[in-house]
Amino acid sequence: MRGHHKKSLLYVTREGPSCKDRPDYLWTIRLEWFIIKVMKSLTKELWFETRKKREFINITPQVADLVRESGVQEGLCLVNAMHITASVFINDDEGGLHQDFDVWLEKLAPHEPVSAYRHNVGEDNADAHMKRQIMGREVVVAITRGELHFGPWEQIFYGEFDGQRRKRVLVKIIGE
Amino acid sequence: MRGHHKKSLLYVTREGPSCKDRPDYLWTIRLEWFIIKVMKSLTKELWFETRKKREFINITPQVADLVRESGVQEGLCLVNAMHITASVFINDDEGGLHQDFDVWLEKLAPHEPVSAYRHNVGEDNADAHMKRQIMGREVVVAITRGELHFGPWEQIFYGEFDGQRRKRVLVKIIGE
Amino acid sequence: MRGHHKKSLLYVTREGPSCKDRPDYLWTIRLEWFIIKVMKSLTKELWFETRKKREFINITPQVADLVRESGVQEGLCLVNAMHITASVFINDDEGGLHQDFDVWLEKLAPHEPVSAYRHNVGEDNADAHMKRQIMGREVVVAITRGELHFGPWEQIFYGEFDGQRRKRVLVKIIGE
Repeated sequence: MRGHHKKSLLYVTREGPSCKDRPDYLWTIRLEWFIIKVMKSLTKELWFETRKKREFINITPQVADLVRESGVQEGLCLVNAMHITASVFINDDEGGLHQDFDVWLEKLAPHEPVSAYRHNVGEDNADAHMKRQIMGREVVVAITRGELHFGPWEQIFYGEFDGQRRKRVLVKIIGE
Repeated sequence: MRGHHKKSLLYVTREGPSCKDRPDYLWTIRLEWFIIKVMKSLTKELWFETRKKREFINITPQVADLVRESGVQEGLCLVNAMHITASVFINDDEGGLHQDFDVWLEKLAPHEPVSAYRHNVGEDNADAHMKRQIMGREVVVAITRGELHFGPWEQIFYGEFDGQRRKRVLVKIIGE
Repeated sequence: MRGHHKKSLLYVTREGPSCKDRPDYLWTIRLEWFIIKVMKSLTKELWFETRKKREFINITPQVADLVRESGVQEGLCLVNAMHITASVFINDDEGGLHQDFDVWLEKLAPHEPVSAYRHNVGEDNADAHMKRQIMGREVVVAITRGELHFGPWEQIFYGEFDGQRRKRVLVKIIGE
């Protein structure tokens, strides 16, 4: 629904003493149409538990469904990891590339030696915090005519760098 | 236009049988002003074809024009690469820095050897996907009093890492 | 305030010649309630001057206060560095991790030798521009039921890479 069409009918009833020569009467007056675009929003948390420590999951279908559910025609869709050792990013859905990403991130922010990081006191995930900074916390995607407005190969991924436990992604849609 | 001023004039015409001692009459009643801030949006794709494989293009003037065209006074402007081997980012418009970026990105994600990447089966752009992750897919810029709300040196760039073909940037503006 | 309740009272006054057998009269007609969700926005610049060249400052309390001040219940909160050698990012508020980030960024984009960068003609901050690209310019955070919608450990940081002078962060909130 692009906007909100409000039809207001005004009924004017004469309530004072009537003229002698005619009965009480009723006027029905069509006031006008108000066309108001109201702002809409939708909020949803998606849950994941990866089998591996590091994994990329294509979450485009779930996000696209939520956009349709929101009824938003023109707006913005924020998709963000709610955990600080995970990412949401947009790139190609190609398995070889995902393996390349994994090797590359491990080179830029190696998991081992775990003792090289001051954060790793009782933890071993400092590298995951860094990998997430490179890949990003969130994406904001345009919604146009009720759909995610994507380029030809854009797909949304959840990137897990310290997995094997339940974690969340937030989808927030606002628009009209 | 900050909001939408709607002037509603209500014309009440008596349609029932008239009082004998006077003709039908017309009342004109000024109902009131409705001041409603309506949400606005603008969507535009900008096209680029760089001459070089890697190139940075300052797209601030085009985006600023679209903000003015949108009429949005208070809102957000999303600018994102629609292709997964390109970036949109905000930084300084300084040629030396752009050369530094180019050298630095090549160090962090070298183009060669092309065979080092599993993605490069019939392709040679795996490094471009990585460079784009470092520089980012998108920026969201505030719109205040009808203008891009920038710090002193902020400029928006299209960053191409696998160019020499037609590619797009999406500009989506929402607000009031 | 979730929406804007507008109570419209319509006063219809008969202005034509009155019927003989009764005085002029006044009709008071309750028209109806309009429930309109209006879009709201808030814009605020936060100022910082770090004592050290590189520093991370937790700005979550200031941003949370602005969200409450805005009155926005459902919307988006953009927080961005207005300077191109600084970042706004979301990660863990853990001192050891922040030291790890500092060491790691210095490895990926070393400050010295200053002469290695073409940007450093009369400047010495090319590395700060690069560190900012890795950590990001901005975050967009969902606002749900009037609060920043965070995961369990999400905190917003201002990341300074070329400090010891006054710099700004922009907070822009839009929603209903």
